[in-house]
Amino acid sequence: MHFKIRAAAKEDCREISRMIKELAVFEKMSDQVKISHEELERDGFCQNPFFECLVTEVPEQNKSEEGFTLVGYALYFYTYSTWMGRSVYLEDLYVMPEFRGNGIGKGLMSKVAEVGKKKQCVRLQLSVLDWNTPARDFYATKGAQDLTASEGWHFIRFDGQSLDDLVNEAPKD
Amino acid sequence: MHFKIRAAAKEDCREISRMIKELAVFEKMSDQVKISHEELERDGFCQNPFFECLVTEVPEQNKSEEGFTLVGYALYFYTYSTWMGRSVYLEDLYVMPEFRGNGIGKGLMSKVAEVGKKKQCVRLQLSVLDWNTPARDFYATKGAQDLTASEGWHFIRFDGQSLDDLVNEAPKD
Repeated sequence: MHFKIRAAAKEDCREISRMIKELAVFEKMSDQVKISHEELERDGFCQNPFFECLVTEVPEQNKSEEGFTLVGYALYFYTYSTWMGRSVYLEDLYVMPEFRGNGIGKGLMSKVAEVGKKKQCVRLQLSVLDWNTPARDFYATKGAQDLTASEGWHFIRFDGQSLDDLVNEAPKD
Repeated sequence: MHFKIRAAAKEDCREISRMIKELAVFEKMSDQVKISHEELERDGFCQNPFFECLVTEVPEQNKSEEGFTLVGYALYFYTYSTWMGRSVYLEDLYVMPEFRGNGIGKGLMSKVAEVGKKKQCVRLQLSVLDWNTPARDFYATKGAQDLTASEGWHFIRFDGQSLDDLVNEAPKD
Protein backbone atom coordinates (compact mmCIF):
# COMPACT_ATOMS: atom_id res chain seq x y z
CA MET A 1 0.00 0.00 0.00
CA HIS A 2 1.25 3.45 -0.85
CA PHE A 3 1.63 5.79 2.12
CA LYS A 4 3.44 8.99 2.90
CA ILE A 5 5.05 9.99 6.20
CA ARG A 6 5.27 13.72 6.83
CA ALA A 7 5.66 16.19 9.68
CA ALA A 8 2.32 16.96 11.34
CA ALA A 9 0.82 20.40 10.78
CA LYS A 10 -1.25 22.31 13.32
CA GLU A 11 -4.34 21.45 11.26
CA ASP A 12 -3.71 17.71 11.85
CA CYS A 13 -4.21 17.96 15.63
CA ARG A 14 -7.89 17.02 15.50
CA GLU A 15 -6.97 13.82 13.66
CA ILE A 16 -4.01 13.12 15.94
CA SER A 17 -6.32 13.57 18.91
CA ARG A 18 -8.75 11.07 17.32
CA MET A 19 -5.92 8.52 17.01
CA ILE A 20 -4.64 9.17 20.56
CA LYS A 21 -8.13 8.25 21.76
CA GLU A 22 -8.26 5.16 19.52
CA LEU A 23 -4.96 3.99 21.00
CA ALA A 24 -6.30 4.55 24.53
CA VAL A 25 -9.49 2.61 23.72
CA PHE A 26 -7.32 -0.26 22.47
CA GLU A 27 -5.43 -0.11 25.77
CA LYS A 28 -8.78 0.01 27.65
CA MET A 29 -7.74 3.35 29.18
CA SER A 30 -9.83 5.83 27.20
CA ASP A 31 -10.93 7.64 30.36
CA GLN A 32 -7.28 8.60 30.94
CA VAL A 33 -7.04 10.94 27.94
CA LYS A 34 -7.29 14.48 29.32
CA ILE A 35 -5.72 16.24 26.34
CA SER A 36 -7.81 17.83 23.59
CA HIS A 37 -6.77 18.79 20.08
CA GLU A 38 -6.66 22.44 21.20
CA GLU A 39 -4.01 21.53 23.78
CA LEU A 40 -2.03 19.60 21.16
CA GLU A 41 -2.16 22.67 18.92
CA ARG A 42 -0.98 24.90 21.76
CA ASP A 43 1.81 22.59 23.01
CA GLY A 44 3.13 21.26 19.71
CA PHE A 45 2.99 24.38 17.57
CA CYS A 46 4.30 27.12 19.83
CA GLN A 47 7.71 28.79 19.84
CA ASN A 48 9.37 26.13 22.00
CA PRO A 49 7.20 23.11 21.20
CA PHE A 50 6.85 20.40 23.85
CA PHE A 51 6.70 17.69 21.19
CA GLU A 52 6.95 16.99 17.46
CA CYS A 53 4.81 14.58 15.49
CA LEU A 54 4.92 12.63 12.23
CA VAL A 55 1.75 11.39 10.55
CA THR A 56 1.09 8.74 7.92
CA GLU A 57 -1.22 9.69 5.10
CA VAL A 58 -2.77 7.32 2.56
CA PRO A 59 -4.28 8.33 -0.80
CA GLU A 60 -8.01 9.10 -0.90
CA GLN A 61 -8.74 5.74 -2.61
CA ASN A 62 -7.20 3.88 0.35
CA LYS A 63 -9.01 5.81 3.07
CA SER A 64 -10.26 3.98 6.16
CA GLU A 65 -13.76 2.56 6.53
CA GLU A 66 -14.79 5.74 8.35
CA GLY A 67 -13.18 7.92 5.68
CA PHE A 68 -9.90 8.88 7.35
CA THR A 69 -6.72 9.41 5.33
CA LEU A 70 -4.43 10.00 8.35
CA VAL A 71 -3.93 6.44 9.60
CA GLY A 72 -0.94 6.56 11.93
CA TYR A 73 1.25 8.87 13.98
CA ALA A 74 4.51 8.98 15.93
CA LEU A 75 4.80 11.60 18.67
CA TYR A 76 8.25 12.32 20.06
CA PHE A 77 10.35 14.93 21.83
CA TYR A 78 13.98 15.61 22.68
CA THR A 79 15.66 14.63 25.93
CA TYR A 80 19.21 15.15 27.16
CA SER A 81 21.93 13.04 28.71
CA THR A 82 24.67 14.89 30.61
CA TRP A 83 27.05 12.15 29.46
CA MET A 84 26.06 11.73 25.82
CA GLY A 85 24.00 14.79 24.84
CA ARG A 86 20.89 14.89 22.69
CA SER A 87 18.42 12.03 22.49
CA VAL A 88 15.03 11.57 20.90
CA TYR A 89 12.22 9.93 22.85
CA LEU A 90 9.37 8.15 21.09
CA GLU A 91 6.30 8.66 23.27
CA ASP A 92 3.54 7.21 21.04
CA LEU A 93 3.56 5.06 17.92
CA TYR A 94 0.18 4.12 16.47
CA VAL A 95 -1.20 2.63 13.27
CA MET A 96 -4.95 2.11 12.78
CA PRO A 97 -5.71 -1.64 12.97
CA GLU A 98 -6.96 -1.95 9.36
CA PHE A 99 -3.65 -0.47 8.09
CA ARG A 100 -1.27 -2.70 10.03
CA GLY A 101 1.07 -5.15 8.31
CA ASN A 102 2.10 -2.62 5.66
CA GLY A 103 5.32 -1.44 7.26
CA ILE A 104 3.78 1.84 8.44
CA GLY A 105 4.79 1.35 12.09
CA LYS A 106 8.39 0.47 11.20
CA GLY A 107 8.43 3.36 8.73
CA LEU A 108 7.29 5.85 11.37
CA MET A 109 9.86 4.61 13.87
CA SER A 110 12.69 4.78 11.32
CA LYS A 111 11.63 8.28 10.31
CA VAL A 112 11.77 9.41 13.95
CA ALA A 113 15.27 7.91 14.15
CA GLU A 114 16.19 9.81 10.99
CA VAL A 115 14.83 13.11 12.31
CA GLY A 116 16.73 12.52 15.56
CA LYS A 117 19.96 11.71 13.77
CA LYS A 118 19.68 14.93 11.76
CA LYS A 119 19.39 16.78 15.08
CA GLN A 120 22.59 15.06 16.29
CA CYS A 121 20.76 12.75 18.69
CA VAL A 122 22.84 9.75 19.74
CA ARG A 123 19.95 7.72 21.14
CA LEU A 124 16.34 6.88 20.42
CA GLN A 125 14.54 5.85 23.58
CA LEU A 126 11.05 4.66 24.49
CA SER A 127 9.20 2.71 27.15
CA VAL A 128 7.35 -0.56 26.93
CA LEU A 129 5.24 -2.60 29.37
CA ASP A 130 6.81 -5.85 30.55
CA TRP A 131 3.81 -7.97 29.44
CA ASN A 132 4.01 -6.57 25.89
CA THR A 133 6.23 -9.39 24.68
CA PRO A 134 5.70 -8.84 20.93
CA ALA A 135 6.89 -5.23 21.21
CA ARG A 136 9.81 -6.13 23.48
CA ASP A 137 10.89 -8.91 21.12
CA PHE A 138 10.62 -6.56 18.16
CA TYR A 139 12.86 -3.95 19.81
CA ALA A 140 15.35 -6.63 20.86
CA THR A 141 15.47 -7.99 17.29
CA LYS A 142 16.28 -4.47 16.14
CA GLY A 143 19.23 -4.33 18.53
CA ALA A 144 17.73 -2.17 21.30
CA GLN A 145 18.82 -2.55 24.91
CA ASP A 146 16.30 -3.03 27.72
CA LEU A 147 17.92 -0.83 30.39
CA THR A 148 15.46 -1.88 33.06
CA ALA A 149 16.39 -5.54 32.57
CA SER A 150 20.14 -5.00 32.07
CA GLU A 151 20.91 -2.12 34.46
CA GLY A 152 17.88 -1.95 36.74
CA TRP A 153 16.52 1.49 35.84
CA HIS A 154 13.09 2.31 37.33
CA PHE A 155 10.67 5.07 36.34
CA ILE A 156 9.62 7.36 39.17
CA ARG A 157 6.67 9.76 38.95
CA PHE A 158 5.43 12.59 41.13
CA ASP A 159 1.98 13.92 40.24
CA GLY A 160 -1.14 15.27 41.93
CA GLN A 161 -0.63 15.73 45.67
CA SER A 162 2.99 14.49 45.70
CA LEU A 163 3.93 17.08 43.06
CA ASP A 164 2.12 19.85 44.95
CA ASP A 165 3.90 18.82 48.15
CA LEU A 166 7.27 19.18 46.43
CA VAL A 167 6.33 22.60 45.08
CA ASN A 168 5.25 23.75 48.53
CA GLU A 169 8.64 22.77 49.97
CA ALA A 170 10.55 24.90 47.45
CA PRO A 171 12.90 27.40 49.12
CA LYS A 172 11.69 30.97 48.88
CA ASP A 173 13.83 33.26 46.73
CA MET B 1 24.13 27.15 55.68
CA HIS B 2 22.94 29.94 53.45
CA PHE B 3 22.58 29.03 49.79
CA LYS B 4 20.81 30.38 46.75
CA ILE B 5 19.19 28.40 43.94
CA ARG B 6 19.01 30.17 40.58
CA ALA B 7 18.65 29.44 36.88
CA ALA B 8 21.99 28.55 35.29
CA ALA B 9 23.55 31.07 32.92
CA LYS B 10 25.63 30.19 29.88
CA GLU B 11 28.73 31.24 31.84
CA ASP B 12 28.02 28.50 34.42
CA CYS B 13 28.50 25.65 31.92
CA ARG B 14 32.16 25.14 32.79
CA GLU B 15 31.21 24.66 36.45
CA ILE B 16 28.22 22.47 35.58
CA SER B 17 30.52 20.33 33.43
CA ARG B 18 32.91 20.05 36.39
CA MET B 19 30.05 18.79 38.57
CA ILE B 20 28.75 16.37 35.89
CA LYS B 21 32.22 14.81 35.92
CA GLU B 22 32.31 14.71 39.74
CA LEU B 23 28.98 12.86 39.73
CA ALA B 24 30.31 10.39 37.14
CA VAL B 25 33.47 9.80 39.20
CA PHE B 26 31.27 9.08 42.23
CA GLU B 27 29.36 6.57 40.06
CA LYS B 28 32.69 5.12 38.84
CA MET B 29 31.70 5.96 35.27
CA SER B 30 33.83 9.02 34.53
CA ASP B 31 34.94 7.58 31.16
CA GLN B 32 31.30 7.77 30.03
CA VAL B 33 31.13 11.58 30.00
CA LYS B 34 31.41 12.64 26.36
CA ILE B 35 29.89 16.10 26.77
CA SER B 36 32.02 19.20 27.21
CA HIS B 37 31.04 22.60 28.58
CA GLU B 38 30.97 23.92 25.00
CA GLU B 39 28.28 21.39 24.12
CA LEU B 40 26.31 22.31 27.24
CA GLU B 41 26.50 25.95 26.18
CA ARG B 42 25.33 25.08 22.67
CA ASP B 43 22.50 22.73 23.71
CA GLY B 44 21.17 24.54 26.76
CA PHE B 45 21.39 28.14 25.61
CA CYS B 46 20.10 28.05 22.04
CA GLN B 47 16.72 29.12 20.71
CA ASN B 48 14.99 25.81 21.47
CA PRO B 49 17.13 24.56 24.36
CA PHE B 50 17.41 20.80 24.91
CA PHE B 51 17.55 21.25 28.68
CA GLU B 52 17.32 23.78 31.50
CA CYS B 53 19.43 23.83 34.62
CA LEU B 54 19.31 25.23 38.15
CA VAL B 55 22.47 25.77 40.19
CA THR B 56 23.10 26.22 43.90
CA GLU B 57 25.45 29.00 44.89
CA VAL B 58 26.99 29.54 48.32
CA PRO B 59 28.54 32.79 49.60
CA GLU B 60 32.27 33.28 49.10
CA GLN B 61 32.98 32.58 52.79
CA ASN B 62 31.38 29.13 52.45
CA LYS B 63 33.19 28.12 49.26
CA SER B 64 34.39 24.54 48.82
CA GLU B 65 37.88 23.32 49.75
CA GLU B 66 38.94 23.81 46.12
CA GLY B 67 37.39 27.28 46.01
CA PHE B 68 34.11 26.60 44.22
CA THR B 69 30.93 28.55 45.00
CA LEU B 70 28.64 26.55 42.68
CA VAL B 71 28.08 23.42 44.73
CA GLY B 72 25.07 21.67 43.19
CA TYR B 73 22.90 21.50 40.10
CA ALA B 74 19.64 20.08 38.79
CA LEU B 75 19.38 19.51 35.05
CA TYR B 76 15.91 18.90 33.61
CA PHE B 77 13.83 19.12 30.43
CA TYR B 78 10.22 18.92 29.35
CA THR B 79 8.50 15.78 28.13
CA TYR B 80 4.95 15.19 26.93
CA SER B 81 2.19 12.70 27.63
CA THR B 82 -0.54 12.39 25.00
CA TRP B 83 -2.96 11.64 27.84
CA MET B 84 -1.92 14.25 30.40
CA GLY B 85 0.18 16.87 28.59
CA ARG B 86 3.31 18.59 29.84
CA SER B 87 5.73 16.95 32.27
CA VAL B 88 9.12 17.88 33.62
CA TYR B 89 11.89 15.28 33.76
CA LEU B 90 14.73 15.55 36.26
CA GLU B 91 17.80 14.08 34.55
CA ASP B 92 20.54 14.92 37.08
CA LEU B 93 20.51 16.08 40.69
CA TYR B 94 23.88 16.61 42.34
CA VAL B 95 25.26 18.21 45.49
CA MET B 96 29.00 18.22 46.23
CA PRO B 97 29.71 15.78 49.09
CA GLU B 98 30.98 18.43 51.54
CA PHE B 99 27.71 20.39 51.15
CA ARG B 100 25.28 17.52 51.70
CA GLY B 101 22.90 17.43 54.65
CA ASN B 102 21.95 21.09 54.26
CA GLY B 103 18.73 20.59 52.32
CA ILE B 104 20.31 21.63 49.01
CA GLY B 105 19.27 18.46 47.17
CA LYS B 106 15.67 18.70 48.37
CA GLY B 107 15.69 22.41 47.60
CA LEU B 108 16.84 21.81 44.02
CA MET B 109 14.23 19.12 43.47
CA SER B 110 11.44 21.28 44.86
CA LYS B 111 12.55 24.20 42.72
CA VAL B 112 12.41 22.01 39.60
CA ALA B 113 8.87 20.99 40.64
CA GLU B 114 8.01 24.67 41.08
CA VAL B 115 9.42 25.61 37.65
CA GLY B 116 7.47 22.72 36.11
CA LYS B 117 4.25 23.69 37.82
CA LYS B 118 4.59 27.23 36.51
CA LYS B 119 4.89 25.74 33.01
CA GLN B 120 1.66 23.78 33.63
CA CYS B 121 3.43 20.44 33.99
CA VAL B 122 1.29 17.82 35.71
CA ARG B 123 4.14 15.43 36.47
CA LEU B 124 7.74 15.42 37.62
CA GLN B 125 9.51 12.25 36.52
CA LEU B 126 12.96 10.75 36.93
CA SER B 127 14.77 7.42 36.86
CA VAL B 128 16.58 5.58 39.60
CA LEU B 129 18.61 2.37 39.75
CA ASP B 130 16.99 -0.53 41.60
CA TRP B 131 19.97 -0.97 43.97
CA ASN B 132 19.82 2.69 45.03
CA THR B 133 17.57 1.96 47.98
CA PRO B 134 18.14 5.27 49.84
CA ALA B 135 17.00 7.26 46.80
CA ARG B 136 14.06 4.95 46.09
CA ASP B 137 12.96 5.14 49.72
CA PHE B 138 13.28 8.93 49.66
CA TYR B 139 11.06 9.25 46.58
CA ALA B 140 8.52 6.81 48.05
CA THR B 141 8.41 8.81 51.30
CA LYS B 142 7.67 11.88 49.22
CA GLY B 143 4.69 10.12 47.63
CA ALA B 144 6.20 9.23 44.24
CA GLN B 145 5.07 6.15 42.32
CA ASP B 146 7.56 3.59 41.02
CA LEU B 147 5.97 2.85 37.63
CA THR B 148 8.40 0.05 36.85
CA ALA B 149 7.41 -1.78 40.03
CA SER B 150 3.68 -1.00 39.88
CA GLU B 151 2.93 -1.13 36.15
CA GLY B 152 5.95 -2.86 34.64
CA TRP B 153 7.37 -0.08 32.47
CA HIS B 154 10.79 -0.80 30.94
CA PHE B 155 13.27 1.62 29.37
CA ILE B 156 14.33 0.76 25.83
CA ARG B 157 17.31 2.36 24.10
CA PHE B 158 18.59 2.33 20.53
CA ASP B 159 22.06 3.80 20.04
CA GLY B 160 25.19 3.23 17.97
CA GLN B 161 24.65 0.57 15.31
CA SER B 162 21.03 -0.17 16.25
CA LEU B 163 20.14 3.52 15.81
CA ASP B 164 21.98 3.69 12.48
CA ASP B 165 20.14 0.56 11.31
CA LEU B 166 16.79 2.20 12.06
CA VAL B 167 17.80 5.33 10.18
CA ASN B 168 18.89 3.28 7.17
CA GLU B 169 15.47 1.61 7.04
CA ALA B 170 13.62 4.93 6.89
CA PRO B 171 11.27 5.17 3.87
CA LYS B 172 12.54 7.54 1.22
CA ASP B 173 10.44 10.66 0.70
